[in-house]
Amino acid sequence: MLHLILADSELETVPSEISSDKSLRRKARRRGKRPTELILDSNYFHKPMRKLEDSERRGRPDIVHVCMLTALDSPLNHEGLLKFNVHTRQDKVIKVNPETRIPRSYNRFVGLMEQLFLTGEVPPESPLLKMKDATLAEKVKETGPERVVTLREDGKRISRKKLFRGISKKDDFCAIVGGFPHGEFLSEVDSLSDEKIKIYPKALEAVTVVTHIIQFYEAEYLKNLLFHG
Amino acid sequence: MLHLILADSELETVPSEISSDKSLRRKARRRGKRPTELILDSNYFHKPMRKLEDSERRGRPDIVHVCMLTALDSPLNHEGLLKFNVHTRQDKVIKVNPETRIPRSYNRFVGLMEQLFLTGEVPPESPLLKMKDATLAEKVKETGPERVVTLREDGKRISRKKLFRGISKKDDFCAIVGGFPHGEFLSEVDSLSDEKIKIYPKALEAVTVVTHIIQFYEAEYLKNLLFHG
Repeated sequence: MLHLILADSELETVPSEISSDKSLRRKARRRGKRPTELILDSNYFHKPMRKLEDSERRGRPDIVHVCMLTALDSPLNHEGLLKFNVHTRQDKVIKVNPETRIPRSYNRFVGLMEQLFLTGEVPPESPLLKMKDATLAEKVKETGPERVVTLREDGKRISRKKLFRGISKKDDFCAIVGGFPHGEFLSEVDSLSDEKIKIYPKALEAVTVVTHIIQFYEAEYLKNLLFHG
Repeated sequence: MLHLILADSELETVPSEISSDKSLRRKARRRGKRPTELILDSNYFHKPMRKLEDSERRGRPDIVHVCMLTALDSPLNHEGLLKFNVHTRQDKVIKVNPETRIPRSYNRFVGLMEQLFLTGEVPPESPLLKMKDATLAEKVKETGPERVVTLREDGKRISRKKLFRGISKKDDFCAIVGGFPHGEFLSEVDSLSDEKIKIYPKALEAVTVVTHIIQFYEAEYLKNLLFHG
């Protein structure tokens, strides 16, 4: 089983310190919400966001969206071998049921996230996404992993063989991928990880790291299904 | 070189037969455009679209968006071994410069596509995306391929070894992936393809097929870079 954690993801609601901004209040009113119930989006709230600490990396629900879309449609997920989790800057963890159908439309996805932050689970009738408070360390521990690797630009180059050595399909293998556009992990990943690795010499988008680590795992454990020998 | 063609993609402007629809006209006015200059989007124009033939599959710029995002950030593209092209339902072909930075924001992407349909190239100062009229057969021929494969649900299972047998990194290998949500190719792919193959027994989203064919190619030709032996 591959436990993939999108860590320190830049997914959050509008912080109260900028909630009195006029354009934010207008948008909230139009949507019938309070400003602090909106998902922070750097694409729309660029100006008020300048007042926030770390403003150049925050407000990126699009990263979570595209990573979820690609992870949940992978053969690995269809075969029941993937558990996908989102951990956020404010130590919220979203547990994603593997059968979730993530909305293709970005605006609908953001609407779903708003509801999730408000109620803690969506959809109301039979929740597929559940949110709780947990640090990255707590979430990693919960997966009971045999091995934990963190993917980062300054990690070690490692052979696929070595990466999975001694790990069977039934073991819990945990991979941590940064859910932010650039910069460092906010969470302390060093002490959590058996290895810090990179898959390519240059920086890659989160979604590229997600699809690659999934397919490395598929190539190892679904070889006969996908490569046909 | 992998030439990846997203074929029969459901990317088009609003057809004139529904351009008199009130909600479409309102949206166009708000954006300072004619209705027929808007990109057709099933998520927003669901009701007027019901009058269109094939309405249940049309208006899916989101598929093109996510496929472009993931393809252009792949190590294969960074290494200069990928040419990504979009072919549409109306036989338009978009040639994508490998250095293009596709907007992360869906709304900005749609704005870019509107401009592309209007002017034939974007951005104006030094075009990275260029559109022309061409059928899928014409585009495939233009790549001068050693081998052409079409990815489809009812294709053959084939080993990766056999897929690339006799093909070197310098050869032009052409892969055709459907840029539509479900159903059949509109273009005649049988006569164009040396092989019709599938990578997994169940239907997959276009983006999943795109990331997998790219990574199959990477695993074959960038083995030492990505797998480190």
